Amino acid sequence: MDIAALREAHPDHWRRAAAIRTLTLDAVAAANSGHSGAPIGLADVATVLWSKHLKFDAAHPQWPDRDRFILSNGHASMLIYALTYLTGMPGMDLQQIKDFRQWGSKTAGHPERGHAPGVETTTGPLGQGLANAVGKAMAEAHLRAVWGEKVVDHHTFVFAGDGCLMEGISHEAIALAGMQKLDRLIVFFDHNGITIDGKVSLADITDQRERFDASGWDTFACDGHDPDDIDRAIREAKASPRPAMIECRTHIALGAPQQDTAKGHGAITKPEDVAATKEAYGMAAGSFVIEDEVKSWWEEVGARGGEAHAEWRARLDKLSKGKRAEWDRVEAGEAPRKLQSTIRALKKQAVEAMPKLATRAASEKVLEVVNPIMPETFGGSADLTGSNNTQAGGITVFDPENRAGRYVHYGIREHGMAAAMNGIVTHGGLRPYGGTFLVFSDYARGAIRLSSLMAVPTVYVMTHDSIGLGEDGPTHQPVEHLAALRAMPNHLVIRPADQVETAEAWEIALTSMTTPVTLALSRQGLPAVRSKNTNKNLVSQGAYVLAEAEAKRQVVLMASGSEVSVAMDAKAALEADGIGARVVSVPCMELFWQQDESYRRRVLPGGAVRVAVEAAVRQPWDRFLLGERGREQKAGFVGMDGFGASAPAETLFEKFGITADAVAEKAKSLL
Amino acid sequence: MDIAALREAHPDHWRRAAAIRTLTLDAVAAANSGHSGAPIGLADVATVLWSKHLKFDAAHPQWPDRDRFILSNGHASMLIYALTYLTGMPGMDLQQIKDFRQWGSKTAGHPERGHAPGVETTTGPLGQGLANAVGKAMAEAHLRAVWGEKVVDHHTFVFAGDGCLMEGISHEAIALAGMQKLDRLIVFFDHNGITIDGKVSLADITDQRERFDASGWDTFACDGHDPDDIDRAIREAKASPRPAMIECRTHIALGAPQQDTAKGHGAITKPEDVAATKEAYGMAAGSFVIEDEVKSWWEEVGARGGEAHAEWRARLDKLSKGKRAEWDRVEAGEAPRKLQSTIRALKKQAVEAMPKLATRAASEKVLEVVNPIMPETFGGSADLTGSNNTQAGGITVFDPENRAGRYVHYGIREHGMAAAMNGIVTHGGLRPYGGTFLVFSDYARGAIRLSSLMAVPTVYVMTHDSIGLGEDGPTHQPVEHLAALRAMPNHLVIRPADQVETAEAWEIALTSMTTPVTLALSRQGLPAVRSKNTNKNLVSQGAYVLAEAEAKRQVVLMASGSEVSVAMDAKAALEADGIGARVVSVPCMELFWQQDESYRRRVLPGGAVRVAVEAAVRQPWDRFLLGERGREQKAGFVGMDGFGASAPAETLFEKFGITADAVAEKAKSLL
Repeated sequence: MDIAALREAHPDHWRRAAAIRTLTLDAVAAANSGHSGAPIGLADVATVLWSKHLKFDAAHPQWPDRDRFILSNGHASMLIYALTYLTGMPGMDLQQIKDFRQWGSKTAGHPERGHAPGVETTTGPLGQGLANAVGKAMAEAHLRAVWGEKVVDHHTFVFAGDGCLMEGISHEAIALAGMQKLDRLIVFFDHNGITIDGKVSLADITDQRERFDASGWDTFACDGHDPDDIDRAIREAKASPRPAMIECRTHIALGAPQQDTAKGHGAITKPEDVAATKEAYGMAAGSFVIEDEVKSWWEEVGARGGEAHAEWRARLDKLSKGKRAEWDRVEAGEAPRKLQSTIRALKKQAVEAMPKLATRAASEKVLEVVNPIMPETFGGSADLTGSNNTQAGGITVFDPENRAGRYVHYGIREHGMAAAMNGIVTHGGLRPYGGTFLVFSDYARGAIRLSSLMAVPTVYVMTHDSIGLGEDGPTHQPVEHLAALRAMPNHLVIRPADQVETAEAWEIALTSMTTPVTLALSRQGLPAVRSKNTNKNLVSQGAYVLAEAEAKRQVVLMASGSEVSVAMDAKAALEADGIGARVVSVPCMELFWQQDESYRRRVLPGGAVRVAVEAAVRQPWDRFLLGERGREQKAGFVGMDGFGASAPAETLFEKFGITADAVAEKAKSLL
Repeated sequence: MDIAALREAHPDHWRRAAAIRTLTLDAVAAANSGHSGAPIGLADVATVLWSKHLKFDAAHPQWPDRDRFILSNGHASMLIYALTYLTGMPGMDLQQIKDFRQWGSKTAGHPERGHAPGVETTTGPLGQGLANAVGKAMAEAHLRAVWGEKVVDHHTFVFAGDGCLMEGISHEAIALAGMQKLDRLIVFFDHNGITIDGKVSLADITDQRERFDASGWDTFACDGHDPDDIDRAIREAKASPRPAMIECRTHIALGAPQQDTAKGHGAITKPEDVAATKEAYGMAAGSFVIEDEVKSWWEEVGARGGEAHAEWRARLDKLSKGKRAEWDRVEAGEAPRKLQSTIRALKKQAVEAMPKLATRAASEKVLEVVNPIMPETFGGSADLTGSNNTQAGGITVFDPENRAGRYVHYGIREHGMAAAMNGIVTHGGLRPYGGTFLVFSDYARGAIRLSSLMAVPTVYVMTHDSIGLGEDGPTHQPVEHLAALRAMPNHLVIRPADQVETAEAWEIALTSMTTPVTLALSRQGLPAVRSKNTNKNLVSQGAYVLAEAEAKRQVVLMASGSEVSVAMDAKAALEADGIGARVVSVPCMELFWQQDESYRRRVLPGGAVRVAVEAAVRQPWDRFLLGERGREQKAGFVGMDGFGASAPAETLFEKFGITADAVAEKAKSLL
């Protein structure tokens, strides 16, 4: 690559883009770790996009109608840190750049939402940003239809590398976006031909443009180092009535000795390499030196959106008082006041009827009353609508002909759905939920983890939550999934026992501000167990005394979901033998462990024999069997210690010994 | 669809294919569950493939040189059960068909490897079969290069539906196969335009042929109900020098009232619907009735491969004695005798040197000595070769130009890699291992679960196993992944502490017959801790006393991997204060819980304070803190209770309080 020719062809552009490059070189060298190649390779594309197209107001990175910029190749984090520093976003000073990848800095190794300004979503696990962006573009299209172009009218821009496009999630995202005709979505493919192991051709010969074309995109190409050509491609992409992909032909680590090699992907840290690269760029040799003129130019770019922002705010102020209050409420992510009374009324009805109901059907009953009063819910399913009971309350299908629709046929794409939901929730203004079978949480786990790490309230409606699924067999029966999800930090797994608990679970999910929720729901019908305390949300305590011992308390039985009624039956059998047994319903372990110790000891007192029952592996129950402060505790578990089998559900519970008799026997054997 | 015209056009073919259809109708009706539509829709394609192309010997379903047939749309399980019953595979009698989806039958809801004959791999979770088949075709290509066409020379055929092709894993599989030019791989796409939620177009507009073309495949199309056209397409596909996809235009639930609708996807069970469908087919009304002539014809199809099988066996018998013994050994999945002494020698060297070494580097040292003596190892990495240390011992890269190579650049495709490895291991003759970062086990979890469920010894080399990864930050730092993998039935998670334990871990992995193994390995250098007992494989006991208390034993410290040396330092601190502390190394929890109670109690005696330390969440340690039989146990845990952060590794251990001081303090606070 002839760097001198690039410098000469567009001298002003070159110096502005080179500022990104030298900041990258210096920050990576200071950290002695990171990725130099991609930020350097993408600096020209970023400079053109941010200065000529991206609608943003650096002073207010959270302006709701900003264009979204997503760095799906998150290892190129120095690119976004350089851009947000150069344009003057609040809190992004030069010290942050100098502290790249250090404890306490905003400039984490990969961009983390909530740490640095301008980071729309956490990226790094490849492909996530791209799939997240599809959700953002869907959110924009929907909100534009609902609120009008005067208040919602923006683009979603994504930078993605070869890694993003190799990951399977990219296929799910691309196909969904193509079907949805998301014309405001523009993806820049950093086509540099290099991955960590070497040339892309070691592992891939895919023609990416042909592949995007096949899924209904328009595709374009440009020389990723020619600002005019980049600008031309962006203009063409914006004019396209379909989602657009721009193949940007770039050189990884442009101008460095490692250019166009796998070594250029990682950290360029040797002082002589850094110096040689800066010299090639025609830039000053000192560290973290940015010409004043260049910095001023970038700050002007950052300030340019201020006017549009002010105009937008004036338009927002013209909304009626009621509409404006609604806008502010959904932007803040707050549930409507009416939610609590609606849930209470539903619970009251349930207690009067005490219906036998699958909790997935109970969930549908919640959605029937909640969706009409919460216009911000945005539902969907990964092609299991009838099984997940997720389309309820009159919401219509979101598609290119009906952008006001609030229900998405995500297709058989659990991972893409989860990531898109993360995109929707981080876009703001909407509260997404999506359904699949609990066993397929495995497929979505990469994105579920990001919900937890980003601290956003994405809701996963996971039905068919045990061997109770029956004949479909062990490939479809979750056994270890409750444990695996409970192990995840900042994630609520709620497994309600009946209609009342399901309503309370949804109330928690719909009011959660910083924690994603997985609702684990049964396929099979379950008897109602909650007949009291309908006003208070008992699920919010995580575990509570559902039924007190009648005879002298010798046993505490603990259970969740479909096994709560098993525990109730076991209690009846024990009481018939004169053995007092308390039943503790444990719909949400995480919430229980957040209660204070005195509450926990009241619910789970020492002394009594403890038996837990759940049609799943034991691992997360050990802590319940351990007792507070490691006090002596005779305890046992009734559940699964291997995979399930294919047979009717009742047969499976019998054959795997998850029965009231087995629970009562276990308790007796410990007494 | 004019069924009468189909019947008239090819009357013999029609009756043979209709046998599959009526068995499907009857079995689903008897089970009152299952999927009628896909087996009925694919019956013609299956009949042509199995009768005219598939190389198999029904009497010997495990003939190593058989063609592989994989039903990736596993919900169409009645298709394979009907085919294996009709062709007369051992153990597949009519009673099995009648017991479809019942307890104890071979005919599970989805095809499970090891249950029914002719099931090459467990399918049901969509896309897995397709990705698994890519592994099988790679295995065939490699083994053909190694052993010659006289003993290895077969095709891999896959049936896949819309669901398989929507799942992201399909993209990873297709792109890998295209790059690898797997010309013996032929995929039949059941293009019926219907999924559970309705028309495919609700969620997808992808041109599948264009998409496969983009990744280097040849694509063909046929009328999926015209036997001549199907045969023509198969012949063309077989002649292609690239992997081939045949788009089979079919009608789901052909001839049933539910034809071409989402209702046809599921169970057709109403007697009147079943009767009407059979009448349309021109078949007898009775249940499970197959004409003798049709059954005989299918049995001839099943017997036809007997001759080829005998000829193959004769060719195999011509191998030299040494080669034949090697063939038998690798086919049986047995490790060479030399493995034990090789591992012992390596351990001896390590104890002499006591090097500070990252366990990923220790793993490389094992591969350096093992790969040369085990020609059946087949390594790879998801584009992290240098980080996973997986290419060692002189193995070269497997690609179209070097089929004898034993190292795969899987690309940035963790899920596809895991599924391909399952395909390789279930093909037979090879023992695959593949690397990525432990945190990305999330991406691969769908396939990892199938390793466990199928009970096959796939080896996952998961490096960068904690916050010890450092600056890349929380997106790349596993915290809950050890817990999530330990929760999975039939899965060994081994987290070795030093070079000796790493060698023992690999010995277990390479001799495992029915259990997959995840090796959790450190990025950072670790001090050697094992200086004794180098002959015996102590890791195989799961946990063992690494260092006995010097003063009177008051404390038992437990740790795995990188925290074992932390525990050793804590022990030193405690002993300096006169507090005797035993250190128990816990490299593999699952193996420890398989030991008898007396061993477990010897290792973890009651009475002493227990403190566990692991740079991960506490969940799987609770059982260690609980004590045998719930005996009183003062216990504590030092580890992570949230996500990590971006900073140098030493800083992170310090900031998150995972230090020898913290462990010693925790023990003291409990005394």
